[in-house]
Amino acid sequence: MNNAKTRTKRIPKTTSQRLYLGSGRVGLARSEKLRTAQDVTGSSACGLDPEDWTESRVQAHRMLDDLFDHLEGLRDGPVWRPLPSAVRESFDAPLPIAPSELSAVHEDFLRNILPYGNGNLHPAFMGWVHGGGNLAGMLGEMLAGGLNANLGGRDHAPIEVERQILRWVRQIFGFPATATGLFLTGSSMANFMGLLVARHATLVESGPDAADCSLVAYASNAVHGCVPQAMELSGLGRAALRLIPVDEAGRIRLDILSSSIAADRAAGFRPFLIVGTAGTVDIGAVDDIDGLATLAERENLWFHVDGAFGALAILSPTLSPLLAGLERSDSLAFDFHKWGQVPYDAGFLLVRDGEAHQATFASPAAYLRREARGLAANSPWPCDFGIDLSRGFRALKTWFTLKTYGLAKLGDVIDNTCALARRLEARVRAEPSLELLAPVALNIVCFRHRGVDPDSLNARIVADLHESGIAAPSTTQIGGQLAIRAAIVNHRTAARDVDALVDEVLALGSRR
Amino acid sequence: MNNAKTRTKRIPKTTSQRLYLGSGRVGLARSEKLRTAQDVTGSSACGLDPEDWTESRVQAHRMLDDLFDHLEGLRDGPVWRPLPSAVRESFDAPLPIAPSELSAVHEDFLRNILPYGNGNLHPAFMGWVHGGGNLAGMLGEMLAGGLNANLGGRDHAPIEVERQILRWVRQIFGFPATATGLFLTGSSMANFMGLLVARHATLVESGPDAADCSLVAYASNAVHGCVPQAMELSGLGRAALRLIPVDEAGRIRLDILSSSIAADRAAGFRPFLIVGTAGTVDIGAVDDIDGLATLAERENLWFHVDGAFGALAILSPTLSPLLAGLERSDSLAFDFHKWGQVPYDAGFLLVRDGEAHQATFASPAAYLRREARGLAANSPWPCDFGIDLSRGFRALKTWFTLKTYGLAKLGDVIDNTCALARRLEARVRAEPSLELLAPVALNIVCFRHRGVDPDSLNARIVADLHESGIAAPSTTQIGGQLAIRAAIVNHRTAARDVDALVDEVLALGSRR
Repeated sequence: MNNAKTRTKRIPKTTSQRLYLGSGRVGLARSEKLRTAQDVTGSSACGLDPEDWTESRVQAHRMLDDLFDHLEGLRDGPVWRPLPSAVRESFDAPLPIAPSELSAVHEDFLRNILPYGNGNLHPAFMGWVHGGGNLAGMLGEMLAGGLNANLGGRDHAPIEVERQILRWVRQIFGFPATATGLFLTGSSMANFMGLLVARHATLVESGPDAADCSLVAYASNAVHGCVPQAMELSGLGRAALRLIPVDEAGRIRLDILSSSIAADRAAGFRPFLIVGTAGTVDIGAVDDIDGLATLAERENLWFHVDGAFGALAILSPTLSPLLAGLERSDSLAFDFHKWGQVPYDAGFLLVRDGEAHQATFASPAAYLRREARGLAANSPWPCDFGIDLSRGFRALKTWFTLKTYGLAKLGDVIDNTCALARRLEARVRAEPSLELLAPVALNIVCFRHRGVDPDSLNARIVADLHESGIAAPSTTQIGGQLAIRAAIVNHRTAARDVDALVDEVLALGSRR
Repeated sequence: MNNAKTRTKRIPKTTSQRLYLGSGRVGLARSEKLRTAQDVTGSSACGLDPEDWTESRVQAHRMLDDLFDHLEGLRDGPVWRPLPSAVRESFDAPLPIAPSELSAVHEDFLRNILPYGNGNLHPAFMGWVHGGGNLAGMLGEMLAGGLNANLGGRDHAPIEVERQILRWVRQIFGFPATATGLFLTGSSMANFMGLLVARHATLVESGPDAADCSLVAYASNAVHGCVPQAMELSGLGRAALRLIPVDEAGRIRLDILSSSIAADRAAGFRPFLIVGTAGTVDIGAVDDIDGLATLAERENLWFHVDGAFGALAILSPTLSPLLAGLERSDSLAFDFHKWGQVPYDAGFLLVRDGEAHQATFASPAAYLRREARGLAANSPWPCDFGIDLSRGFRALKTWFTLKTYGLAKLGDVIDNTCALARRLEARVRAEPSLELLAPVALNIVCFRHRGVDPDSLNARIVADLHESGIAAPSTTQIGGQLAIRAAIVNHRTAARDVDALVDEVLALGSRR
């Protein structure tokens, strides 16, 4: 192991050579230290807390101010800028054996990270369905970073905050008080967990046989790639997911679904799950959720909805009718960090049958013993409903966001992004050199420039757009054609951003 | 659906009644607004950014100061306090339809959340292997909350920061430059992902058969519960994990492991994976990693190490010999939020064979198309190495922590917690009414009071300790006996905290 050798040589050498020089104290050499280990006094000289709290506090305020400056000036900068190679190379630094001043680390952040962000804070970001974040959520995250709570379990207020969010989520989606749920990273994970609960519930009902090769599931062929992946990772296999064609609006064909289920049953397969989609990834189509719920009920199948971004449209009274039937689903995955504008990451899984949910994941362990009082009280714990024992305090940034802005305002933001999508659709339709490639159901507009060799032309236009800093849509394939995909999610996006996108696509298209 | 009805009635009613009164502007009623959707102007009046940035900035600084006050005064407060029922009930509030002042939400936080934390910030917290967090990491998390980057992919500096951490992790653990890795929530997830990579690599080698029921894996019977759970969730089944007995030090018996593999092969099973443990959950035992690596090599099995907390002992020159052979493992799971003191959550998975890692998770999708320039450049992306497409910026709090304190200092902190564990061990051995229940390999001490009916006595002592606010160990079972389990992880913990634990256990034991 060449690398191992390099390492072994490297770390001890550097560490054994140094002496600590903190607050006038010259540290002990290591061998001395070991000898005196039994004599450790009450001092926490080995800890990471600052010697000078005031100095750290001043530095922290400086960092907060710099961050505010950045957020306040977002619109004045480009949506994105390419990383200079020197910046990229700065992240191939030697191992940080020795300490650095916090202020120096922050300078490094200001120079090499802050200017080269993801772009999704910016009003003109329209790619890949990214939320825009928000101030209250950011401050909630700051507090969570300080509290450092582990939301895996135990009896403390952070757990109650997550339960508060769960109660609100139940109410928002019309689930019963017995429904359970928890924060996860995102909907890819939540869809995976939903599938695992569905399988577990099915197998419990029909006898345990975790490797049952006859189980089959259904989703439209516009389903997000995480669902076939979840089938594979769970051991059920991608082939056991039947991909059902969609109608011209991009919604699953219920008639074909119904006959597929019948054909599978006739062939000896065991249908167990239908995955509906509220907001397909490519065009934002919403399956007929109520129709799927009825079909799943009739066929006695688990009905899971991937509502990654679309589910929160329920906060808009004008859009919520599109989601009729969501309250009949067995489980629902969605993200607060998309249309909910909560800082990344804050996915959520909601499960109607709390017992099935818990039974899928609960693993009694001696080191997780529950008590009636003390820190080990307050069972069941979130770790009984998922894989994670170590869980950050995602609930706090969500709590700050929901309470500060209110659900009505968040619904307005969602409405507004859809209004902007309609505006973009209208502008595309009005331009002879542009072509709309998919119907606009929510906030996603897929279109392209009609120029010569359109696939490569439109790919170049999008890369040019990014580099110009003017707008940042992404791309996808619609009917075999490369589409410019504008997903309007950010609460900061305004009409002028949409107009700038169209104007620049036209300009780039004619220039090319 | 009664609940659905309640909901449908509730949200629209409230939202349709309100009028926005922001900065002198009276908002439009919703119907009017829809009509005017095409007329949206350049104003971002619908966004969530503050009307008055200065006011928000002042409030944010106030919040930061309050947090500093809390952190600076940690030692003056109890390690934990029970939640009064009024506080618990405050988290059953109605849906927050209307907005609230950020200052009011923060008041609510100060009153109902901050005083009732998890306890793991406090020097006297010794339960469940929780890290203590740190200031630099907290400030990194604040910045990450503001940046709101999605680390799923794309070309931006946050991705490069995560790659920097990966490079450092490779160096720290002696992995080659071709090794891949990424942040996950925690080691339960990282162990699960490691198992999925191991299975994928095995099946690719021997032909695709995802539901192969003959695959079997091995770990000691002291393995963390997430490993059998991962076997179940992956579809392989708990029974396919052979739990091998441990020696008197709690380490897997290599001889029994070896003969189990032979017996399984003879019986037609297909061994594919050995999971070693660096720091068992109950007592902190470290398997013979080098011996396991040799065995795995000989048997051509994937060798994964669960180093949830123990792996970072490599930062201590005095402890790192315990981990010899770690550089030979195929994959490694560990947490920066435990001994690394990074705020929750920051788990990590490292995989030697980057191609096998990527092949397990990469799912080409039209909406994730890669380009040579623009935002869609910089492939492969972290989403190609795991399930998550939405990924927070865990790398930043880790980067701030590692750079600010330096690896040598973090190694010292780890050393110090082990020295404190030896001190606790010595004190337990010196007290006739106390009994040590397991050898102390690292930083975990399992002991008990010898009083009458010791299981219930020691459970009561621990709950009393929590309620007293003096110390917070947890419990586990050792050899069928309930043990007080003190896992010393926090960098703030000092000798007086360990002494207070012993003194109070003695006092409570004699009082009971």
